[in-house]
Amino acid sequence: MTKSLVENRLRELGIDLPEPPKAVGAYVPVIRTGNLIVTSGQLPWKKDRLAFSGKLGTDLTVEQGSEASRLCAINAIAQLKVAAGDLDRVRQIVRVEGYVHCGPGFREHPQVLNGASDLLNAVFGERGRHTRTALGIHEMPLDSPVQLIVWAEVE
Amino acid sequence: MTKSLVENRLRELGIDLPEPPKAVGAYVPVIRTGNLIVTSGQLPWKKDRLAFSGKLGTDLTVEQGSEASRLCAINAIAQLKVAAGDLDRVRQIVRVEGYVHCGPGFREHPQVLNGASDLLNAVFGERGRHTRTALGIHEMPLDSPVQLIVWAEVE
Amino acid sequence: MTKSLVENRLRELGIDLPEPPKAVGAYVPVIRTGNLIVTSGQLPWKKDRLAFSGKLGTDLTVEQGSEASRLCAINAIAQLKVAAGDLDRVRQIVRVEGYVHCGPGFREHPQVLNGASDLLNAVFGERGRHTRTALGIHEMPLDSPVQLIVWAEVE
Repeated sequence: MTKSLVENRLRELGIDLPEPPKAVGAYVPVIRTGNLIVTSGQLPWKKDRLAFSGKLGTDLTVEQGSEASRLCAINAIAQLKVAAGDLDRVRQIVRVEGYVHCGPGFREHPQVLNGASDLLNAVFGERGRHTRTALGIHEMPLDSPVQLIVWAEVE
Repeated sequence: MTKSLVENRLRELGIDLPEPPKAVGAYVPVIRTGNLIVTSGQLPWKKDRLAFSGKLGTDLTVEQGSEASRLCAINAIAQLKVAAGDLDRVRQIVRVEGYVHCGPGFREHPQVLNGASDLLNAVFGERGRHTRTALGIHEMPLDSPVQLIVWAEVE
Repeated sequence: MTKSLVENRLRELGIDLPEPPKAVGAYVPVIRTGNLIVTSGQLPWKKDRLAFSGKLGTDLTVEQGSEASRLCAINAIAQLKVAAGDLDRVRQIVRVEGYVHCGPGFREHPQVLNGASDLLNAVFGERGRHTRTALGIHEMPLDSPVQLIVWAEVE
């Protein structure tokens, strides 16, 4: 049994950390520079397929979007683990960039992205508090409803 | 009277630094990591309401957009003050991410964002010189015409 | 003849590094903070004009978009040289933000941005491996098909 506090917390929340998703192009999924880790754009992968696709406000409900952004955050945590070695070395989630694939007039980006933010807060506690950017995107790669980038500070 | 050079400069420019706007979701408005400060997406709040809403090229003139981006920058400075303690500790504005809510065919993102850039240059002088990203967004949270993120280096 | 390994590699690839493009507003094209360099949004300039304009999926083929993103990356390398002094001081390309100006239903952002990623990998080898963000933009400044931001770590 792991001694990692963060992994125990994931277990309490019923979350199995997946294999970190591979890149979908000529790049890497996560990198460390100094004490900072930054992920590539994370999508709502469940194993080999996107759990959701389409646009918020057109094809998907806010609840589905929120679940998609939560999945992106889980995949981002899997990436952080690769780069940090141990999730307990994460001192702070620094920044979440949240891009929401949406149709005309959509305004509920914050509710969609709270799926990711709430999860990061639940998993990392005080260390999960992060800044956030919420933007609408008209056409997203792979028709994904959300793309999420996570920046973290590590020891 | 404050000894802060930057706050004196704000006063000369006739700018009252507002209370830093709160987050509109499960995140924090500003964070420090190492010598870097990064804000969440700043909107053109004046107290409890957005001073402008709608899309550039459809609902708002470039002048209104420029004024909105200037307001975003003032709010960002209020956030920097929280994180830095004293604005004189800002060594450099590093990066401005400028997102412009706009309608079909709009091309004047640079003019809109110069409202923010000119203000940062006026307030911080040589230390205000920053890199910039200018992007159009089709659907923005809260129907805000501009969203601005500011990165700064502090002592 | 330069001793720079990276510049020799550029020569082998048949690339003449251009003058680094100027900013198109009240900002600077590149900045260094600590060991990080970040560029402003790079466009596919060839001397004084954009080599491509318009939207992917509407006005331009994926091949043209890929060539445009490769040009953005070459301009970004010219900016990195200014900030680093010598390109051999680049320890790692950290992050590429790729924004693709595109029409309805476009999904080939990754292929377009591989033009930039492949070039960075070819020029910097192992040090060119980077994280990436790929997003669609409905209206881009100057009608540019691609905007690229590059983050690098230097010695």
